[in-house]
Parts: sequence; C-alpha cells; structure tokens
Amino acid sequence: MSQQGEKKAVILLSGGLDSATILALAKEQGYSCYALSFDYGQRHCSELDAAKLVAESAAVVEHKIIRIGLGEFGGSALTDPSIAVPEQRELKGADNEIPVTYVPARNLLFLSFAQGWAEVLGARDIFIGVNAVDYSGYPDCRPEFIESFQQTANLATRAGTEGEPSTIHTPLIELTKAEIIQQGNRLGVDYSATVSCYQADGQGRACGECDSCSLRRAGFAAAEIADPTRYL
Amino acid sequence: MSQQGEKKAVILLSGGLDSATILALAKEQGYSCYALSFDYGQRHCSELDAAKLVAESAAVVEHKIIRIGLGEFGGSALTDPSIAVPEQRELKGADNEIPVTYVPARNLLFLSFAQGWAEVLGARDIFIGVNAVDYSGYPDCRPEFIESFQQTANLATRAGTEGEPSTIHTPLIELTKAEIIQQGNRLGVDYSATVSCYQADGQGRACGECDSCSLRRAGFAAAEIADPTRYL
Repeated sequence: MSQQGEKKAVILLSGGLDSATILALAKEQGYSCYALSFDYGQRHCSELDAAKLVAESAAVVEHKIIRIGLGEFGGSALTDPSIAVPEQRELKGADNEIPVTYVPARNLLFLSFAQGWAEVLGARDIFIGVNAVDYSGYPDCRPEFIESFQQTANLATRAGTEGEPSTIHTPLIELTKAEIIQQGNRLGVDYSATVSCYQADGQGRACGECDSCSLRRAGFAAAEIADPTRYL
Repeated sequence: MSQQGEKKAVILLSGGLDSATILALAKEQGYSCYALSFDYGQRHCSELDAAKLVAESAAVVEHKIIRIGLGEFGGSALTDPSIAVPEQRELKGADNEIPVTYVPARNLLFLSFAQGWAEVLGARDIFIGVNAVDYSGYPDCRPEFIESFQQTANLATRAGTEGEPSTIHTPLIELTKAEIIQQGNRLGVDYSATVSCYQADGQGRACGECDSCSLRRAGFAAAEIADPTRYL
C-alpha cells in the first residue's frame, strides 16, 4: 500500500536516452520512482551498466534488474548472434518494414513485468519511453498497442479489477528525438551516462555508425545541444 | 516458417492436470506442439518435474523452461515465503475474493512469453489451460482477459501486424474439473504424472488437504474416474 500522498511509479529503464528522460519527467511530476530493467540476452550489455548509473543519479527508491531468457527464442538481431545488426541506416525503409532489431513481444513482456511489480508496490502508474516517430517500424511502440495493453492489464490484475486501474504513461510517444533531448536537458539529465548504440563496447562507447547512433547524433544536432556521447 | 501443412502451437504447460489436458487436446487437433514452462520462484518445484514428464510422454517437438524472477516482486503466497498458503478451501469465499495464491500478472506474463516464442516459431496458435469455473477468483483466467490479450498481442507483434494474427485457445475455460478429467481420460492422459498441489513434496506427492487438492479430488469423484494422484 502507498503511504498517504505518495505517488509511486514503475519506470521501464533501458539505459538509453529515452528512458533516462522519462525517469526525469516522472520525478518532475512528483512520483516516487521504481526503476525496472531487464537482462534479456541483449548484445549490448553496457546498456545495463548505463541503467544502473542513470537510476543511481536519479536517486530512485529501488532499481530491479530482472533476468529473462528472451534470447533463447532467437529471432532478433539484438539477441541472436546469427543475425547481423545493420550498420547502415535501415530502420525506415521506403516500405516501412519492421527492422531486424525488433525483438518479438519485447514491450509486451516488459510492460507485463512492470504491471506485476506495480501491483505488488501499490503503484498505479507505469512509464515507458516508446516513441512512434523515430521508431515507426516497431509495432509495439505504437499508441494503439499501448492503449490496448492498458485495457488488457487492467482486466488481468487484482488492482484493475478492484477499481484501481493503472495507467501507462508514454510522454515521449509523439516527440522527435530533438524534442526528447530538449526535455531531458531542461531537467538536467546527464546523457553521457546513457547508451543507445546497438554495438557499444564494454565501456559504453558508441560506434557512431549504426542506425541508433545516427538517430541520436541527428537528435542532438537538431536540438542544438552539444552531443556528450562517448564515441569509439 | 512452418513447413507446408504443419500447424505449430505453443502450449503453456505447468505440470498440472489442466495443462496436461490441453496438450493432449492440441495433439488431437493435429498441432505440432511446443511446450513452454516457467520457473518463476513457485514453491512447488515438483510442478516443473511433472511438466517435464508430461512433455516427454506427449512427445512434444520441444519443451522450453524459462526462468523468470517473478518471486522477486513478492505479493503472492505461491512465491513469497512470508505469506501462508491456505490449507482449507478458501478460494471461493462468499464475497468472491481474489485468493492469496494469485500471482500478480502471471498469465499476462506467461501469454506474453508464449506470444514471443510463437512468433519466432511461425506458430499462430497458443493453448492455455485457464478455467473460469473452478478458479473464478483469478482475474487473469476470465474470458474477457483472454480476448483482450489476444487483441493486444496482435497489435504488438510483427506477425499480427503483417496479417497473420495469432489465436489464444482456451478449450477448458467453461468446463468443470470433472469434464476436464473426462476429456483427458478419453485421450489417455496419465494424470498420475501431474501435480496440482500447492504444497507437493519433492517427489510430487500431494498433501490432499489444500484447496487445489480438494478441487482435484472432487473432480475425479464427480467424473467417476479413479483418482491416480499420489498423496502423502
């Protein structure tokens, strides 16, 4: 149960630029923040180190890292060593194809875990840094998916059934990368601690070439904010 | 990708009576069966041994056991040692309360994993042994939850987005325990291998007293089929 007046939120924290920003936004809105990260066999483990740094510097109440065997299923360049991560900008092809970096059911799983933890904590709010503008190729980043998930989750859980439905917050969903960076900059987010690169090295240094790096670099340029990313 | 004519299905297999029955039903319907179980910190680990036996005797194509840290969240008598499992029949109180054996977001998570694996396998069918009759206290066993999940999952995944939506099959949802047992008996399911007891010992022997044992015992009696359960 929450203490009187305390607003708890579960924040899905990947260690990337977007999730660091939603954590700062949730804090600004007065939430006590519980950060949730996943070790799911992703290639770029430096993401998790980044998540720890971000959680620590935001002074979250608790940071849980859940290990899930998502890599066992294969099917994605991010978890399956037999599929190459694209080095060139391939995410938004002319035919709007779903990229090979798509991980099957990832946000469905992440939100389900967040829902479970929120219920135990007595939290009614979940924040996720999905973005429909820059990543339009991922089906599980679209507003219609998020809305549908919220309905389903409230049918699944004791809290939702007992008249305390939870809300999925997606404050970045309609923002460009530049607008996201401007929000975080205003709130003092240290983006040098975050890792977006799919092929970052063990120290969290970015390749500067992959699709994710290109989007991030262009975002800082468009926001007219100095890019603090540590490149290889 | 499926071979021509091959119908693949992911079967959520707990090692209990219900899931052993849905596996037999899926086989009867001609599916190539991929069984999925979870090690989620449940107290009754003999369930997983039972799942292995059931999967083996049904000759499934593959059986995956995914370890997930659900117990870390606490909040349920099944995963939290500080909450007592009820020994008496308490599931269906007069006020229809949700039982303490409810695990937050469990079926939401299990179905999400099944969805992810199904997508990688090229399977469009998922079987889950939920039952709205005997377990009406669990919100995530109701038909409205299952229907909502199916919609959400098809919005989340590449397959659903690309015109190959998946279907969640719940062949037991409206059956009584006795009817479930009759179905399984007809298909030759060996129920002595299954474990329903929340407090089974390391050899899978049931206490005979807990709520789950009572439901099961009454089911065999009502079905007029000899109860092969191994009791302590």
